[in-house]
Amino acid sequence: MDAAEFRRRGREMVDYVADYLENIEQRPVYPDLEPGYLRSLIPSEAPLEPESYEDVMKDVERVIMPGITHWHSPYFFAYFPAASSYPAMLADMLCGAIGCIGFSWAASPACTELETVMLDWLGKMLQLPECFIAGTDGHGGGVIQGTASEATLISLLAARCKAIRRVQATNPEISEAEVLSKLVAYTSEQFCATLGTTPSCAFDHTTELGPICNDENMWMHIDAAYAGSAFICPEFRPLLNGIEFADSFNFNPHKWLLVNFDCSAMWVKKRTDIIGAFKMEPLYLKHENQESGLVTDYRHWQIPLGRRFRSLKLWFVFRMYGLKGLQAHIRKQVALAKEFESLVRADKRFEICAEVIMGLVCFRLKGSNELNQNLLKKITKSQEIHLVPCQLSGRFVLRFAICARTTESRHIQQAWRHITQLTFELLQEPSH
Amino acid sequence: MDAAEFRRRGREMVDYVADYLENIEQRPVYPDLEPGYLRSLIPSEAPLEPESYEDVMKDVERVIMPGITHWHSPYFFAYFPAASSYPAMLADMLCGAIGCIGFSWAASPACTELETVMLDWLGKMLQLPECFIAGTDGHGGGVIQGTASEATLISLLAARCKAIRRVQATNPEISEAEVLSKLVAYTSEQFCATLGTTPSCAFDHTTELGPICNDENMWMHIDAAYAGSAFICPEFRPLLNGIEFADSFNFNPHKWLLVNFDCSAMWVKKRTDIIGAFKMEPLYLKHENQESGLVTDYRHWQIPLGRRFRSLKLWFVFRMYGLKGLQAHIRKQVALAKEFESLVRADKRFEICAEVIMGLVCFRLKGSNELNQNLLKKITKSQEIHLVPCQLSGRFVLRFAICARTTESRHIQQAWRHITQLTFELLQEPSH
Repeated sequence: MDAAEFRRRGREMVDYVADYLENIEQRPVYPDLEPGYLRSLIPSEAPLEPESYEDVMKDVERVIMPGITHWHSPYFFAYFPAASSYPAMLADMLCGAIGCIGFSWAASPACTELETVMLDWLGKMLQLPECFIAGTDGHGGGVIQGTASEATLISLLAARCKAIRRVQATNPEISEAEVLSKLVAYTSEQFCATLGTTPSCAFDHTTELGPICNDENMWMHIDAAYAGSAFICPEFRPLLNGIEFADSFNFNPHKWLLVNFDCSAMWVKKRTDIIGAFKMEPLYLKHENQESGLVTDYRHWQIPLGRRFRSLKLWFVFRMYGLKGLQAHIRKQVALAKEFESLVRADKRFEICAEVIMGLVCFRLKGSNELNQNLLKKITKSQEIHLVPCQLSGRFVLRFAICARTTESRHIQQAWRHITQLTFELLQEPSH
Repeated sequence: MDAAEFRRRGREMVDYVADYLENIEQRPVYPDLEPGYLRSLIPSEAPLEPESYEDVMKDVERVIMPGITHWHSPYFFAYFPAASSYPAMLADMLCGAIGCIGFSWAASPACTELETVMLDWLGKMLQLPECFIAGTDGHGGGVIQGTASEATLISLLAARCKAIRRVQATNPEISEAEVLSKLVAYTSEQFCATLGTTPSCAFDHTTELGPICNDENMWMHIDAAYAGSAFICPEFRPLLNGIEFADSFNFNPHKWLLVNFDCSAMWVKKRTDIIGAFKMEPLYLKHENQESGLVTDYRHWQIPLGRRFRSLKLWFVFRMYGLKGLQAHIRKQVALAKEFESLVRADKRFEICAEVIMGLVCFRLKGSNELNQNLLKKITKSQEIHLVPCQLSGRFVLRFAICARTTESRHIQQAWRHITQLTFELLQEPSH
């Protein structure tokens, strides 16, 4: 395929994408098929000769679409949102074309520098303490990780490295293995200090945990993977209080800030803590500016060596929406969750199982876990809306998360009508 | 931005991308700017109100492009190739639109199942032993990791977990920490058994290492990050001999197989080894098919929880090129490297520093390291071609890697003319 054909096929793909997203409501949100469905639909080996583009695109509808869980359907209420927006998709096209691998400043200065500045923009939107902002006189700064898991792992490894060095500084004779055997990581059921847990969007008391960590010289990492995006709204910002005690912090714009996956934003108070743990310098990655103290080589901040130009997505989204547009998106989704909460509370057969603070409603039928499991089975089987459960204090609970950018009040109302209809059918069944 | 505007802006972006790649030769391959150049070109905070798309795109040329190292310029010969092709870019657009997060089979069955089958296709293209292929009666299979670093880390963690369990199975009283303190990882200078090292594309003797590992019950991981793509050609396949001894293997289609970053293909002989090390099962990720034994939940195979639909890129590229098209790409780039090697060998002032097996030529001026450092400085400063160095047995060596898909003989000839011209100038300078 040459550039001329790409111009033609690219336009077709843009239209396919727009058609897909405009008409996504008409597809069943959750697929109905058996594991292994795909293997029988395509050959068992790659073709020897090239195939036509038309044949490939025909197979997208024949092979792929029947097996898709449509995360961007307005009837998708499962897990947490996977952010998506047109500006982010355009930026991703540009990212793919530039195709630079930004492991060092020299490998594409714009890739590194835009990332640093975008993490400053985002940090300021969240009113992070100045010590996390790279463009101050401080020692902190931000980086884009792939996922919250990677951000947490990086924090753990950096904390471990720092602790070992601290002990060895005063006890030079002690071995690394000996220090290692005595290190302790304190976690809750969700691992680290969390703002907005996955099961129920609960918040740890970081203003209480923080001073203890600081007094005891413990590394404190705060994960706000989902909820973090909401802190750009002044009314939610108090939930981030305690951040001043943290050594590192991350949240996922790819969840709730209209930036397509993957983009997990992470900040550290001291860049040297993280770089100290991962630095590696073969000659083929050295460049003449690296000792200047002015450049960031992000390969020292992460597990992978290679990295894409992901800050373009942030830049496009921040500018095309503006802070006000992003705040409006958060507020709209929280309001939709409140709307659903009201519907649940008005029906005495149901109960709300956790305080609704953001875009997640945890609810259940008053009754046994089995009853609620059966309700969820009916919901899943119907393919009209999609939810997943969670477990809260031993109880089987349904999670209703506002996910798609295009979910409106009418979808919430329709979803609730559907749930109550299935509830009616369930309660009519002989076993109840 | 709504769907209608996306249709318009998407077409413009397709043209921008095609224009960029068609005219990339006219841009200086390596930027000439000072660290910190970008911060002064854009505001220090995100805008409050939305900006126009035109303004954003104007800034792509004003702010971003001057800071890009153009990895897809035919005059880019640095590091290793970052694969790129139009079919992969189209697949990425589709991946962005579907925007599913494939952490479990249920989160989008097509995302998981296409990945398993594409890794089988690719494994067969490489003639991997059957035990690595999922669609056989065996226990193996493939997965897409982000990078070779992640594949190697996963192997290390899986090996560690397996070793601990094996020791504890016969010595139930021994603690994990005690086993851990006795584990040993054997590496070369490049960490693990490598086929095609980064500095010089050297090959470890895996047919000698393999039996030792197997006899001693050691996990053997083989990394062929760059060279692996070439094994789809029968004439290079013998270099993969010894793979039958490996427990795990990875290479990067995002380097040399026309699939845009990121896409590191990894296979394991026993799926249970890797799943055993990472399994995690909160209720909100469970689904009714997971205990059937028929499905793969790839979150157990990797560090991150979330994952993109990356197998679409493989599918589009394999079908649009066909195996023959991919082989032709590899052979053309190896031939270009041989062409450059001949030019170097014909000039008695230079020497070849490592056998040229694939698309990398390591060469230097006969003389001091300083002389070669000065030559590289002149090359970098000229911005016409871009190379990076490596260190081989203490000697400073220049690496000339065939990278861009569009590099042709005329670019090789021009690059060599340029190098010899700069060499001429260098040798005229008073210090020599």
